Amino acid sequence: MCVLVPFAADDPKTRLDGALGPTERAEFARAMLRDVCETVAATGREPIVLSTAPLEVSFPVVVDDRPLTAAVNARLEPPTAVVMADLALATPAAVERLFTPDADVVLAPGLGGGTNAAVIRHDCFTFDYHGVSIRDHRHRAREVGADLATVDSFRLAVDVDEPRDFVELLLHGDGRAHEWLREAGFEAAATDGRVDVRRDD
Amino acid sequence: MCVLVPFAADDPKTRLDGALGPTERAEFARAMLRDVCETVAATGREPIVLSTAPLEVSFPVVVDDRPLTAAVNARLEPPTAVVMADLALATPAAVERLFTPDADVVLAPGLGGGTNAAVIRHDCFTFDYHGVSIRDHRHRAREVGADLATVDSFRLAVDVDEPRDFVELLLHGDGRAHEWLREAGFEAAATDGRVDVRRDD
Repeated sequence: MCVLVPFAADDPKTRLDGALGPTERAEFARAMLRDVCETVAATGREPIVLSTAPLEVSFPVVVDDRPLTAAVNARLEPPTAVVMADLALATPAAVERLFTPDADVVLAPGLGGGTNAAVIRHDCFTFDYHGVSIRDHRHRAREVGADLATVDSFRLAVDVDEPRDFVELLLHGDGRAHEWLREAGFEAAATDGRVDVRRDD
Repeated sequence: MCVLVPFAADDPKTRLDGALGPTERAEFARAMLRDVCETVAATGREPIVLSTAPLEVSFPVVVDDRPLTAAVNARLEPPTAVVMADLALATPAAVERLFTPDADVVLAPGLGGGTNAAVIRHDCFTFDYHGVSIRDHRHRAREVGADLATVDSFRLAVDVDEPRDFVELLLHGDGRAHEWLREAGFEAAATDGRVDVRRDD
């Protein structure tokens, strides 16, 4: 099964702007992309990077500079899987769970209403990543009469989008992106509430 | 197996202070507690509420006004499970996954370094909920020679501690706490980044 890994190659990870400089964001985003591709490959499937611009990476790359939804839907020939490039906590076991349910549509929700990974085996389903996508995708699956399964995974739910997500990667990751973040001086620090991150000066 | 559900009965959920008034926080916290106890009961196990003060609830209650760590450790006779009272997204299937691994220590990480649920089958393991508890608990398991399993669950990872967690409950919940939140006027609202919540005036 084709596993699309969409990647915003130009100015990636803008919501990390306060924590990382532009070059750092690009490096970190590429480290996560490589982690995700290697994790998918470790399950015996071939990732295809769907990038907004040409990219040097040791996996096949297809370039499409349209917004995410259009670019993914243009390549949605069931069965197809889509796994976001910032799932830096994903493990082969977590990715394998996506392929376990024998359902027309399998969704892995992300924190904050996103759809972090999906397997589509139904001809009439299309994505809409805008807005509250997990809710919209559930509706769409019902609309087209597709049976739906949801994967309950912390590792697939955490996409590293905002500085507060660093703590999850620091505590639970073990790939290139985790290593990059540690080498950049970030570490988990206890607070009164949830654990936060701090960076060495 | 005994399933402890620790509950802070006095001034609960202080980190929801900006979003809910004191009476609302108490109501909402009790709705979550009932959801969690009913979910545990639905798996065929008996929840025991470990409360900081006497409480009216249709499950057994043990009162201990000490801090969380001391109160839990005082009742830690293996095998014992501990499930936090604010896991409002927990389902019977998610809770059942806690009991599936045949390991001495089973941990379900929470967002931000917490330990949201655990099963302890080893005599020498004790909890320390202070600080980065998931990291500390992994270390403690290794120190005492306990084999460790981790449950990869989004539903067990989300504890409803802060207003931003409301969006998860609104999108993925279906119990009393979810209903309470909807009736209080909260709804998920799309933003540029992750989905946020807003409240009716």
